[in-house]
Amino acid sequence: MRDAYHEELDSISDGLVELARLAGSAMGRATTALLDADLELAESVIAADEKLDTLHHDLENRAIALLARQQPVATDLRIVVTSLRMSADLERSGDLARHVAKLARLRYPESAVPADLHPIILEMGQLAQRLIAKAGQVIATKDVDAALELERDDDRMDELHKQLFAHLLDDRWHHGVETAVDVTLCGRYYERFADHAVSVAKRVVFLVTGEHADDFVPEPGDEANGS
Amino acid sequence: MRDAYHEELDSISDGLVELARLAGSAMGRATTALLDADLELAESVIAADEKLDTLHHDLENRAIALLARQQPVATDLRIVVTSLRMSADLERSGDLARHVAKLARLRYPESAVPADLHPIILEMGQLAQRLIAKAGQVIATKDVDAALELERDDDRMDELHKQLFAHLLDDRWHHGVETAVDVTLCGRYYERFADHAVSVAKRVVFLVTGEHADDFVPEPGDEANGS
Repeated sequence: MRDAYHEELDSISDGLVELARLAGSAMGRATTALLDADLELAESVIAADEKLDTLHHDLENRAIALLARQQPVATDLRIVVTSLRMSADLERSGDLARHVAKLARLRYPESAVPADLHPIILEMGQLAQRLIAKAGQVIATKDVDAALELERDDDRMDELHKQLFAHLLDDRWHHGVETAVDVTLCGRYYERFADHAVSVAKRVVFLVTGEHADDFVPEPGDEANGS
Repeated sequence: MRDAYHEELDSISDGLVELARLAGSAMGRATTALLDADLELAESVIAADEKLDTLHHDLENRAIALLARQQPVATDLRIVVTSLRMSADLERSGDLARHVAKLARLRYPESAVPADLHPIILEMGQLAQRLIAKAGQVIATKDVDAALELERDDDRMDELHKQLFAHLLDDRWHHGVETAVDVTLCGRYYERFADHAVSVAKRVVFLVTGEHADDFVPEPGDEANGS
């Protein structure tokens, strides 16, 4: 049987996995709300973000309590500090899903995204979900290979982001400036969401190998604007 | 004379103030580079971000070493954990300045921002600098009143962001879609930069009062897209 300290650490890890699940679910539903102009779904994503925030704060408080009570050193200390960071990444991912949902709500009853861009946005949304699901799995399994794969998976997000900009900047763009603004912001939300998933994976690599994953995977936000 | 522990804590705090200074300087220079289409200045901001990242990692490592060595509890523990978070906020602010500089570089020898929007972007840049300077001052002085003022100061950023969107969405917009995309991203970078300054101030309020500042100031990223 594990001691109380490691049980609490496992329980915090479970909480992070749940946070990743909630963020992925939020982004999936936000994407559907955006493409289908589904106001009710958008509202539900916006409302559900509070649950994510509450879990995040709960995990933070528990991690800090663990530091105070158990005074871990070396690897154990790194695990707790890394948990704090992963929790912040995942909470922020939830915010980005909420941003997508707010955009859906803002343009209701229209879809903020014109029909010819639906396939790209759909793929961005699905990819975002897969990335965060994999990040959750990496938290649970500490699988470094899977963590490193996430970086390569994220390359596809960058490609999709570039495709989106190619549409925006095409001379044949006829959806006007407001839609261009919406699509620009949308693209950024998905890209940042993916960055946070990569960041979580990177932190697990660091935890397991003790090496900063900077050699393997880029810092979130390292992309310039995609235009 | 202070003990070694509190001296190290003060030294980390000094490092955070320096990080805020570097981020403010980067955003100031990035804004000039953007408006003047100054390639050399843009390159210097992009290159200087490495210094910011190095300082951030150094502060993180020192904060973690302090946790391991001194095993602080209660207030002292909160100070160290909060330092970790402020360092992350400030490092991210530096990234956003770099994004602005990259946009300046991308559109060189043109300015990415059309002349009629220069006054708004200039004010956003100057306000961003003032906000982060104030955040740095709040870190140094632990002045809760100044920290709470930052939230009100940030209202002006939201106003400017709205003005920017009003231009973009005006029927008379004649700068084309590419420029609209650039301006949209730019606006988001300044807004997020300001959010991180507010976030730093909020963390100081929590440190000093022990109360979450959520009652006073919004979470960074709480704004929906400004369109």
